[in-house]
Amino acid sequence: MATPFEFEITARDPRTQARTGRLHTPHGVIETPAFMPVGTQGSVKALSQEDLRVIGAQIVLANAYHLYLRPGTAVLEQAGGLHPFMHWERPLLTDSGGFQVFSLSGLTKVSRDGVTFQSHLDGSRHTFTPERSVDIQRSIGADIIMCFDECTRYPVTHAEAARSMRMTMQWAERCNRHWRDTDDGRQALFGIVQGGVYSDLRKESAESLTAIGFPGYAIGGVSVGESKTEMRDAVAAATPHLPEDRPRYLMGVGPPDDFLDAVAMGVDMFDCVMPTRNARNGALFTSEGRINIKNQRFATDFGPLDPRCACPVCKVYSRAYLSHLYRAGEIAALRFNTLHNLFFMLDLAASAQKAIGAGRFDAFRQEILNQAAV
Amino acid sequence: MATPFEFEITARDPRTQARTGRLHTPHGVIETPAFMPVGTQGSVKALSQEDLRVIGAQIVLANAYHLYLRPGTAVLEQAGGLHPFMHWERPLLTDSGGFQVFSLSGLTKVSRDGVTFQSHLDGSRHTFTPERSVDIQRSIGADIIMCFDECTRYPVTHAEAARSMRMTMQWAERCNRHWRDTDDGRQALFGIVQGGVYSDLRKESAESLTAIGFPGYAIGGVSVGESKTEMRDAVAAATPHLPEDRPRYLMGVGPPDDFLDAVAMGVDMFDCVMPTRNARNGALFTSEGRINIKNQRFATDFGPLDPRCACPVCKVYSRAYLSHLYRAGEIAALRFNTLHNLFFMLDLAASAQKAIGAGRFDAFRQEILNQAAV
Repeated sequence: MATPFEFEITARDPRTQARTGRLHTPHGVIETPAFMPVGTQGSVKALSQEDLRVIGAQIVLANAYHLYLRPGTAVLEQAGGLHPFMHWERPLLTDSGGFQVFSLSGLTKVSRDGVTFQSHLDGSRHTFTPERSVDIQRSIGADIIMCFDECTRYPVTHAEAARSMRMTMQWAERCNRHWRDTDDGRQALFGIVQGGVYSDLRKESAESLTAIGFPGYAIGGVSVGESKTEMRDAVAAATPHLPEDRPRYLMGVGPPDDFLDAVAMGVDMFDCVMPTRNARNGALFTSEGRINIKNQRFATDFGPLDPRCACPVCKVYSRAYLSHLYRAGEIAALRFNTLHNLFFMLDLAASAQKAIGAGRFDAFRQEILNQAAV
Repeated sequence: MATPFEFEITARDPRTQARTGRLHTPHGVIETPAFMPVGTQGSVKALSQEDLRVIGAQIVLANAYHLYLRPGTAVLEQAGGLHPFMHWERPLLTDSGGFQVFSLSGLTKVSRDGVTFQSHLDGSRHTFTPERSVDIQRSIGADIIMCFDECTRYPVTHAEAARSMRMTMQWAERCNRHWRDTDDGRQALFGIVQGGVYSDLRKESAESLTAIGFPGYAIGGVSVGESKTEMRDAVAAATPHLPEDRPRYLMGVGPPDDFLDAVAMGVDMFDCVMPTRNARNGALFTSEGRINIKNQRFATDFGPLDPRCACPVCKVYSRAYLSHLYRAGEIAALRFNTLHNLFFMLDLAASAQKAIGAGRFDAFRQEILNQAAV
């Protein structure tokens, strides 16, 4: 029997740092590398939880900022947590709300103690401290919870990135202490590496977190405007200084090429709104590259969206029908497109696992990148 | 083996004119009384065809006006018709577009020959004649197609209602002739009784159509502003003058009380956007009456939407979760609410069939009306 939040590394690719693993949680095992669909408000946009099961989602990500504001922690506590509230029995992860208080709310005021912000819903004032963020995430009850962090602006000077990262490291220490003080073995707290585009700061941040000690480590602040090269540099600067035997989670990164490159650098977990947001804009992944279903050339294309795809949409509906639904503004188009794009990412992660297991991840990555022009 | 479009009357209620029947079509049997979900553009809003199968939809209604404008008859012909285009193997019915050219399009010009109108999508000019409407409905390929009719305004004088109805009767004759000339046994044409709120005109219209002879008869123009009493009067004026042995379809009528009253008057088929439109506005049918899921009192109500409902939503999600999804603007709310309301109507129709079969429809109707305050 695995201990809670044990991370077994089950295979390593001989040519890259890619690895497969099994992260144990109270709601089941997450096979890595894993792509985590984003269900910010307790719902992956346009999908049901049954849809998520059908396409093989192992874990869903929700957000402490959004759920704190609506429906609120009192409702979630009464429901027995987000799992029963949304009727999802597999693992959940919540982001701490650090990113959202900076990106969504108005009139943010930051101090050493925490952040005071205005709700993007009704303008009401609220304060998150590291301890409060952990408490909120306790009420939500996700299997994996995240440290409260300051989202460093981009672009940013070295001095400002250093100040911000060091404050986040102090907050990480407070989150960790509060998490340990309230630990019941059902929720694992992950630390978040910050430091912007500065490799020395990424290294310092990774070392600080490792010294504190977490069940898992995330790399944050890499989806706020950086180039793909800067994202890769940030990952490369952090991972060598994170414990080998703990899961690594790259926050907010999702395009297939970035996913594959980060897996090659030893990253285990990913989330991104891009596959779902793109889907709602008609931009769909296929094995022949990205297409936009709105395009007039699909109006009389009666073949499947992607002949190599086994998703519930490609098995049934044609490009012509999906194109019609999208252009006609039908709500069903949003669900079908989302099902397809998420299946694509989940299938990519599953295929990456197989390739790593077979010792041929590097070749697999090249095949995908050549084939798809993603 | 039943002949195409045979209508078997299988039971009659002893106290009302309610009856159950089986309408045979090339895509299967429709058990009546039947509620037909509306999929105007080839999609029941927010649902998949799999959803429709799961909740027991027997037939879906689409619209010739919308499908003619988008995706167009050329696309539908290439697809082999709407059935394969939308991947729906059960019966379909198309409305002729008569109602829509008057209610949706701009600058309508009516002559004895037909109607010239502007597309509500791009302002382009088009002409529908009775023959053209049949041709368009041939391209779409629904099992049941409708005569092209003028939608009589409401309120309207007797003289104007008479003029409009008599023109529609001439168009019905032309539709019938063109349908017979092009008949391949795969599509049945229904006539539409008009005449506004005037019982003498409803009688005259029903007699005119019966003299022409159709596989089925609809009662139209009763959902354009009439009161419930006027709707009932129009049905009562028409049905005695329609053939007993053919199906009767009341167009655009859907609230549960109107449905039950019309069944009692011998109506067999119904369609209405109200259950699906209400669903998207959060107004949901329950066995305890209509509720609005937005209401704050549902925020902490962790019971099912309707404890007596067996729909896929009530079996899984709570009022609190559905209320949260709706208030949070989640797309999934539209699908869940639609699934529930349509299931309610389909289940009501199925229960009405059972009650008629058991000779207790009148008692059943009173139970539902007392219980639900619908």
